[in-house]
Amino acid sequence: MVLQLGEIAAQIGAQLQGDPDVEVEDIAPLHRATAQQLSFLSSSKFADHLQSTAAIAVILHPDQQAHFSGNCLLMADPYLGYARAAALFHPFEQKQQGIHPSATVDPTATIAADAWIGPQSVVMANVEIEPSVYIGPGCVVASGSKVGRNSRLMGNVSLMEDTVVGESCIIHAGAVLGSDGFGFANDGGKWIKIPQLGRVVVGDRVEIGANTTIDRGALEDTLIGDGVKLDNLVHIAHNVQVGEDCAMAAMVGVAGSTKIAPNCTFGGQAGVVGHLEIVAGTHCTARTLVTHSIHKAGVYSSATTADENRKWRRNSVQFKKLNESVQRLRRVEQKIKQLDEREEDE
Amino acid sequence: MVLQLGEIAAQIGAQLQGDPDVEVEDIAPLHRATAQQLSFLSSSKFADHLQSTAAIAVILHPDQQAHFSGNCLLMADPYLGYARAAALFHPFEQKQQGIHPSATVDPTATIAADAWIGPQSVVMANVEIEPSVYIGPGCVVASGSKVGRNSRLMGNVSLMEDTVVGESCIIHAGAVLGSDGFGFANDGGKWIKIPQLGRVVVGDRVEIGANTTIDRGALEDTLIGDGVKLDNLVHIAHNVQVGEDCAMAAMVGVAGSTKIAPNCTFGGQAGVVGHLEIVAGTHCTARTLVTHSIHKAGVYSSATTADENRKWRRNSVQFKKLNESVQRLRRVEQKIKQLDEREEDE
Amino acid sequence: MVLQLGEIAAQIGAQLQGDPDVEVEDIAPLHRATAQQLSFLSSSKFADHLQSTAAIAVILHPDQQAHFSGNCLLMADPYLGYARAAALFHPFEQKQQGIHPSATVDPTATIAADAWIGPQSVVMANVEIEPSVYIGPGCVVASGSKVGRNSRLMGNVSLMEDTVVGESCIIHAGAVLGSDGFGFANDGGKWIKIPQLGRVVVGDRVEIGANTTIDRGALEDTLIGDGVKLDNLVHIAHNVQVGEDCAMAAMVGVAGSTKIAPNCTFGGQAGVVGHLEIVAGTHCTARTLVTHSIHKAGVYSSATTADENRKWRRNSVQFKKLNESVQRLRRVEQKIKQLDEREEDE
Repeated sequence: MVLQLGEIAAQIGAQLQGDPDVEVEDIAPLHRATAQQLSFLSSSKFADHLQSTAAIAVILHPDQQAHFSGNCLLMADPYLGYARAAALFHPFEQKQQGIHPSATVDPTATIAADAWIGPQSVVMANVEIEPSVYIGPGCVVASGSKVGRNSRLMGNVSLMEDTVVGESCIIHAGAVLGSDGFGFANDGGKWIKIPQLGRVVVGDRVEIGANTTIDRGALEDTLIGDGVKLDNLVHIAHNVQVGEDCAMAAMVGVAGSTKIAPNCTFGGQAGVVGHLEIVAGTHCTARTLVTHSIHKAGVYSSATTADENRKWRRNSVQFKKLNESVQRLRRVEQKIKQLDEREEDE
Repeated sequence: MVLQLGEIAAQIGAQLQGDPDVEVEDIAPLHRATAQQLSFLSSSKFADHLQSTAAIAVILHPDQQAHFSGNCLLMADPYLGYARAAALFHPFEQKQQGIHPSATVDPTATIAADAWIGPQSVVMANVEIEPSVYIGPGCVVASGSKVGRNSRLMGNVSLMEDTVVGESCIIHAGAVLGSDGFGFANDGGKWIKIPQLGRVVVGDRVEIGANTTIDRGALEDTLIGDGVKLDNLVHIAHNVQVGEDCAMAAMVGVAGSTKIAPNCTFGGQAGVVGHLEIVAGTHCTARTLVTHSIHKAGVYSSATTADENRKWRRNSVQFKKLNESVQRLRRVEQKIKQLDEREEDE
Repeated sequence: MVLQLGEIAAQIGAQLQGDPDVEVEDIAPLHRATAQQLSFLSSSKFADHLQSTAAIAVILHPDQQAHFSGNCLLMADPYLGYARAAALFHPFEQKQQGIHPSATVDPTATIAADAWIGPQSVVMANVEIEPSVYIGPGCVVASGSKVGRNSRLMGNVSLMEDTVVGESCIIHAGAVLGSDGFGFANDGGKWIKIPQLGRVVVGDRVEIGANTTIDRGALEDTLIGDGVKLDNLVHIAHNVQVGEDCAMAAMVGVAGSTKIAPNCTFGGQAGVVGHLEIVAGTHCTARTLVTHSIHKAGVYSSATTADENRKWRRNSVQFKKLNESVQRLRRVEQKIKQLDEREEDE
């Protein structure tokens, strides 16, 4: 695709300093861009590349303009400019329509004329597939489920019974939505299964990563708000509510019935135990374990981080005596106070 | 389904205080139950709802009876009552029998007449599928595997060669049983694969979560005992033994050859390193890392938990000097002892 | 398969002490080996079994030879001998060739004559499948992908667009390669997707575990070096580079753009944050969280480990006051210094 620089500037919301008629073929990193390609500077760490890049134009912050003599697309957030420009050059195009002959579609399913049901996929009873939906190869859409307009299931995705996916969602390969929640009552040492009767309901513009799992609710629904982004291998348990525009990096786990308000972020391998409430604007760094509700927006952390094994051994042994050490410290403080008072008495 | 209250009481083992002839249509949470529905109070946290619920009857603990004027089903464990009542209203029904025309079934496989092999599934050579088994859409049952009576593979499940699944098991979508264990010998920096010749053998009444993986043994089998419940994205390595009625929440990992005795529980993201033995009745809270065998039943923990990032930064820096700080504390104690003795000498 | 002991010794590089003409049928653990089977002693922990084993021959370290009176295969690394011998008895044999009639293969795909495309698999446009490749049941190989000679996709594997897999790789069930990286720009609270335009490129002799996910790069490729071994449920984010012969145990996560040099190992549940560089010969124990680049080869750790919950509670509370306690320690040290000086002044 060829776009003119002036058109790109208008579309991404940048101020153009240069020739609007220049033709651009794609976007690439500074060090690799050709004379037909646009590039961007999103971190001053890479500012050195501005001198050597062959890019015909660069998206950058006004503060960096002085360091580049070529065509500039000036924006307060060049990374956002990159995102928008890349989408201009690489729009998703739904090229196929209809039902692949190898797919299995139940006669009671409703499939929009311009949707695509890929090879070896299974669409079961009473499913509703809206217009422009893409169901990739090997997917299962179980009975009663609904996939909203423009949404895409990339491949080998499983939507279990009665799952609802909103519009313009992307569900990556291997993701499972609507598996049973982990609900058991204990009957004298034996686990009795509690039927999981709720659904998974996913809003619009949600992206769900590869092999991520979202369980159906026990009695109520598990809810994923509009605009939520979940990375790969994330686990969302039954009855969880994830608020709008939350983002969770890979391997985050959220236990049952926890409610997360909008605009929270969770770094990789973070975890949240069950039945908590997390206020909007909470940000947890990688590997943070949240065991109490968070009532105040902010940044939270908990992990201990890598050290030489030899040092770590000694420190982690002392972690197990930490309370004891603090008691010793207290006794020392008291003793010093006594000594000090004795001194003064003398 | 409509059931009479007296019948429900008898089936779930509750003492009825009220009208046995009342007709009940389903079970629902207190705040949402209609006048045709049963509800339950499993935590005193929700006792306020007793006043306002429209439920025609409530399962509750005898201590709570005074707070509810309607029909009561009294039980020491109302949560167990809820589990049993929900199962009464929502029994699993195997509605389909036979082999879907889109499935691929090897002629050497033995399939019980009333089992169901779902669309796009693959059943390979010498597989044995017992009566009332449900193989959902997109599943793979590799050669030599066996699925016991009443068990269900929900969709896109992979049972690799020679896997044995007992009776009345539920294996959720995306789970993989029988993948190769992670076994390599190091040959001058290069990894040499060790053929994984054992199997995965799963007992009866086991539930395995979505996208969970259980590796086959190296020379012996990986064993999952009767009644075990594994949540989503759990990893069980080769040669592990998980004892009867153990339960593992999502994202738990157990490394190779570890033996876990019956009736243990593991919170989400817990981990157990290889070649350990864990005694019966061990309970690990979320994110616990077990690096030594556990010989005494009880509750174990290890994680550090969320704090404001600003505070955490300072504390985690000190964690890396913890042993050093304890040495300082020791010197302080010695010095005080000296000072104290000097005082006394004077 | 029956092999003579002399032949085995030659093939595995062991020194034979005993009868080279003895016939051996398989390899088994010491306690279970029959008189037709070979065994091995890889840990002195099991040396007791040498007295009682029925094995016709044992691979062991020369130091252990005195404890076994039967046929010995002497090697400095008996575990490596076991790996090699097991591979002799259990070579992978590609028994099938061609395309199963239930598979869907795009006419533009190139499939080597002796490759196998398993039942219900999907091979899309312009895919290249080299000789002796095994594509198991239910796999998806999306358009533009290439699978190198002798490589095997075990079942329900997803290779997304343009993924490149080298020669002699094994990709276990449920793995996903080439899913979109987790790339978003934030536009006033809303996440804007960044098209993920790079690929996943996997070298030769790589093994990838069940339900592991490897994301495609944003602009450049995600690279997995020759000989890398990844266990189950591992996550490799976009633009990561994993150097040759690295090994990662289950549930390891590596965040975006991190570069890991050759010959590193990561224990289960370890994590590495994004944009780091890890030097060759780095070894991280289980659950280690790496938040800074590692410039010096060695062993690294970070986790706190299991303790009785009652003790852990007190210690983890003190972790949150650790910096404060160290300040108290500092004040105590100062006070002691004062007291000491005062003493001396007197």
